[in-house]
Amino acid sequence: SGLVLVKNPHLDLMEEDILYHLDLGTKTHNLPAMFGDIKFVCVGGSPNRMRAFAQFMHRQLGLAGDGEDVADICAGSDRYAMYRAGPVLSISHGMGIPSISIMLHELIKLLHHAKCRDVTIIRIGTSGGLGIEAGSVVITDVAVDSSFQPRFEQVVLDDVVVRSTELDKGLAEELLACSREIPDVPTLIGHTMCTYDFYEGQGRLDGALCSFSSEKKLEYLRKAYDAGVRNIEMESTAFAALCGLCGLKGESCCFHLL
Amino acid sequence: SGLVLVKNPHLDLMEEDILYHLDLGTKTHNLPAMFGDIKFVCVGGSPNRMRAFAQFMHRQLGLAGDGEDVADICAGSDRYAMYRAGPVLSISHGMGIPSISIMLHELIKLLHHAKCRDVTIIRIGTSGGLGIEAGSVVITDVAVDSSFQPRFEQVVLDDVVVRSTELDKGLAEELLACSREIPDVPTLIGHTMCTYDFYEGQGRLDGALCSFSSEKKLEYLRKAYDAGVRNIEMESTAFAALCGLCGLKGESCCFHLL
Repeated sequence: SGLVLVKNPHLDLMEEDILYHLDLGTKTHNLPAMFGDIKFVCVGGSPNRMRAFAQFMHRQLGLAGDGEDVADICAGSDRYAMYRAGPVLSISHGMGIPSISIMLHELIKLLHHAKCRDVTIIRIGTSGGLGIEAGSVVITDVAVDSSFQPRFEQVVLDDVVVRSTELDKGLAEELLACSREIPDVPTLIGHTMCTYDFYEGQGRLDGALCSFSSEKKLEYLRKAYDAGVRNIEMESTAFAALCGLCGLKGESCCFHLL
Repeated sequence: SGLVLVKNPHLDLMEEDILYHLDLGTKTHNLPAMFGDIKFVCVGGSPNRMRAFAQFMHRQLGLAGDGEDVADICAGSDRYAMYRAGPVLSISHGMGIPSISIMLHELIKLLHHAKCRDVTIIRIGTSGGLGIEAGSVVITDVAVDSSFQPRFEQVVLDDVVVRSTELDKGLAEELLACSREIPDVPTLIGHTMCTYDFYEGQGRLDGALCSFSSEKKLEYLRKAYDAGVRNIEMESTAFAALCGLCGLKGESCCFHLL
């Protein structure tokens, strides 16, 4: 049917669903009227960048006005920022798995309540590259954890639920084809490693509060490269797992910063 | 000596330390002049709340002016917000362990570079209470993980480093004594459980994308209560572990929301 799958029977029995961190709710807002026509959702860490992206989409889609005054739909909350440009929603998710998990929970319930159909969701983030040219874009085929395994472990009460982290292969190929039209931005498909920390988790010798040898770091990064990892960031496993759980067509494309 | 301990010998050999997510650095800013006299650091999730807290401290300390125009020291970054009122620094950390970890790494290096002495750091957050009155404040004696263990597991390259999550007992008692001067805010010392997710991790039947039985949820929460847990949030284990690692006197006090 193209609808979002929400495998929680409690949800439709509730009188009201408050999406706390988005400052939206089923009683306070007419979600089908506000969001029913959304077809694409782009998510990224920084609120300013997601605002700039909505303005960019506004211009690209040739919508009326210059789009400079695009309004934050979640202005009543300082947790996340949300903007729209035609059928495209642009939302920030902060940094790390817990932060993106909260946002995705509320976003997916929003799409469910709004009865959106055939939605594509793309994470557009920054990452550290591994053995690739600076300024490259990595399109993720599968997100892996720090042991290079394609899984996301979520603690649900006292159980550990293991979820798959494969992303949509067709969408990855489609995005790769699009990238060929853009000159000077090397683009490739590869595995993306997701860590729980920026400094110690990614072995930043210069920034961490503890020390470790540069030999050990190089050996680890070599193993990651050999396992197919081409970039490292902090949200992709949770993103892939939640998209998969809810039947959303999802993809993650990260720009490798210098 | 009262100085912050940073167990990374690389740090003092670097020509420049850029605290990326705070938009500060050792070459671009005179950190000792800006922060050398800081004695208290208060951290919390929401940037707006940390701004309001700095304004409140400004008034409490009787500083010149009304403090309404307090400036965001990290205005060049939209990752975190930082304000100061006299010797008190007030900083937001976003939601979840990875987000607070990045902020604490950069904050602790900032205190190190600024040669601050005898700094006390307090997390002032919100949390869900367990078997306690709504509106209570829980002062954490020890942060525990979802198995009720007083530990924080940090993946450093391919090792799992386990760190203690005990907080400063003297400071906890001092804060409890202060609380007795404030009427109508029930305050207690207890364990704080830290999860990686707000919905599934904390068993929110109404909000999660997957389903689980309410019996199982109640059984889990009863076990947590019996283990001494009085509130649940998403940052305390990483906070306690990093304070302990760097010799910072730290405490976490959370307000139990309705």
